Amino acid sequence: MSDRITMAHGSGGTQMQELVEQAFTSIYGNALLLTGDDAAVLQPEELQASGARLAFSTDSYVVTPPVFPGGDIGRLAVCGTVNDLATSGARPLYLSLGFILEEGFLLAELKRIVASIATAAEQAGVLVVTGDTKVVEQGKGDGIYINSSGVGVVAPGVELGGRNCKPGDIIVCSGSLGDHGIAIMSMREGLNFEAPLQSDAAPLDKLTSAVLAAAPHTRCFRDPTRGGLASTLTELARQSCTCMLVEEDKVPIKDAVRGAADMLGYDVFHLANEGKMIAVVPEEEAAAALLAMQQSPYGSDAALIGTVVSVEHPELPRSHKHQVYVRTSLGTLRVMDVLSGEQLPRIC
Amino acid sequence: MSDRITMAHGSGGTQMQELVEQAFTSIYGNALLLTGDDAAVLQPEELQASGARLAFSTDSYVVTPPVFPGGDIGRLAVCGTVNDLATSGARPLYLSLGFILEEGFLLAELKRIVASIATAAEQAGVLVVTGDTKVVEQGKGDGIYINSSGVGVVAPGVELGGRNCKPGDIIVCSGSLGDHGIAIMSMREGLNFEAPLQSDAAPLDKLTSAVLAAAPHTRCFRDPTRGGLASTLTELARQSCTCMLVEEDKVPIKDAVRGAADMLGYDVFHLANEGKMIAVVPEEEAAAALLAMQQSPYGSDAALIGTVVSVEHPELPRSHKHQVYVRTSLGTLRVMDVLSGEQLPRIC
Repeated sequence: MSDRITMAHGSGGTQMQELVEQAFTSIYGNALLLTGDDAAVLQPEELQASGARLAFSTDSYVVTPPVFPGGDIGRLAVCGTVNDLATSGARPLYLSLGFILEEGFLLAELKRIVASIATAAEQAGVLVVTGDTKVVEQGKGDGIYINSSGVGVVAPGVELGGRNCKPGDIIVCSGSLGDHGIAIMSMREGLNFEAPLQSDAAPLDKLTSAVLAAAPHTRCFRDPTRGGLASTLTELARQSCTCMLVEEDKVPIKDAVRGAADMLGYDVFHLANEGKMIAVVPEEEAAAALLAMQQSPYGSDAALIGTVVSVEHPELPRSHKHQVYVRTSLGTLRVMDVLSGEQLPRIC
Repeated sequence: MSDRITMAHGSGGTQMQELVEQAFTSIYGNALLLTGDDAAVLQPEELQASGARLAFSTDSYVVTPPVFPGGDIGRLAVCGTVNDLATSGARPLYLSLGFILEEGFLLAELKRIVASIATAAEQAGVLVVTGDTKVVEQGKGDGIYINSSGVGVVAPGVELGGRNCKPGDIIVCSGSLGDHGIAIMSMREGLNFEAPLQSDAAPLDKLTSAVLAAAPHTRCFRDPTRGGLASTLTELARQSCTCMLVEEDKVPIKDAVRGAADMLGYDVFHLANEGKMIAVVPEEEAAAALLAMQQSPYGSDAALIGTVVSVEHPELPRSHKHQVYVRTSLGTLRVMDVLSGEQLPRIC
């Protein structure tokens, strides 16, 4: 590993995982931090009598450009953190916002972004309750960076986590993949398409709560942001010591997104999503979970895309690695590799 | 107001207050955000039966240089957010950390900063439970920026806030002012002093809980960070529609700090502190609050520095503004002005 930070350390792929292990969890590890889920679920002693637990999550947003088709950094800051809380089964309640502004940033653009935050927060039903603003000199930032942290409440009995996935479980995907990543990268590359490519940034807390009501034994949720579906499912496979088998032609992907990804040389499974949720549910609840997603806001294109399998599964090569396989439309199997390198920087 | 962000918008003084009003609270205001205290105090319905409330606060840290005498950006990120939670009377419990790293930052320096975070978190008794890392290109950051957000629990009956200050209350200061600001500015200016000037960065949660136990009618706490004592007391005066009268020769300030501030042209009341707490307490509990501070970690130099007075107080000029006055050692009164302009950028 390099002795300096590289762009790949922020990509959501292999190098980021290495950085987190070398620089964070090995120096500052504790049981709560080490679960590897997107939100920490906490029960301070003052809450034990009530049975309620807190969910707590944080994300910084450095996306460039800060305004893009379908959204902006403000909408992203609300949706990203709301969705991280939702992965724990929490009802998201409160957000904090920390702005790092570059000297010279236009006040009018800041106001537009704050208005977008207000709209997204209203959609998600969360309140921005505390904030902070810092300013750095020109050339020491890039217009605007936003951190949002969120607090929610997890109902008694809800115990989600990547560790819960079991062979036989079904992988449900709430909609078409790659929309956010390809909208950003197309804009950066100056590409124009007939059908406009739009970010999918959306709050998914109503979708996850509908799935939990319909499929009460849901194992876990995960939103496939940086690193895309490949990073998300690989993490789940490692956390649960299983493998994942994805049916390529069942994964919803828009033709325009697939075309743009091919043209730009990206694997759609590596592209970031900001309004999609992966759920892993027991087989007997899969149909109910799917229907709940399809009837939820932002879930109309949901699909069953694969299954959790044992590393001993007869169809798999005898690698015994906890990884993700794709069954192509030709019926062959290939490994869904985790993103490596820096090909998708500053996507969120 | 300029149509672009200036360094003064991050200074903790007048221009920052204007920015917050124009770009944040006027677009995205709600009752919780508008209290103007350093931490939001929240009671989701799931917690109502227990009587417990949550405290939630956020701060981003952009201090330059990131390592300085007496601390570093990691220690600051823990202490600053712990202290913001402590101002609400909360027991700080959990922290999130969001890193924005510049491409090329040394991994060894990151590891040193994370180790410093671990030490400070242990001192404060808080757990880092969730985190995020982003990387930006060289020239789009400045080595390392950290956001830390924190969650704590506020015991039933504790109702602190700047609005509670009443004429006759006593202002207690936990120790010498200006140490952090002058340590940073001296380092930037390349000044060397015989007595080394050190940042005071320290977690003050034990100090505030000792004061609350000794002085149960404490009105509020506030940590005088950006903008220093002047911003802190002016905010309290405005929130409570009072004035503050500070006795200049009772404010603890180290000779070396006063000397350096004079040499560099700074008003010591504008200098940032990262390990000091201001408490406003009723007169009859002032002695107990002072003793509790003096017996607490980081409070040995605590002092009673002034009183809350009515705007009608006979000693004050008839301005009827809610502001802060200093009685000098000569017995004359002057206004303690709020920091204006950009003279102390990126101090935390």
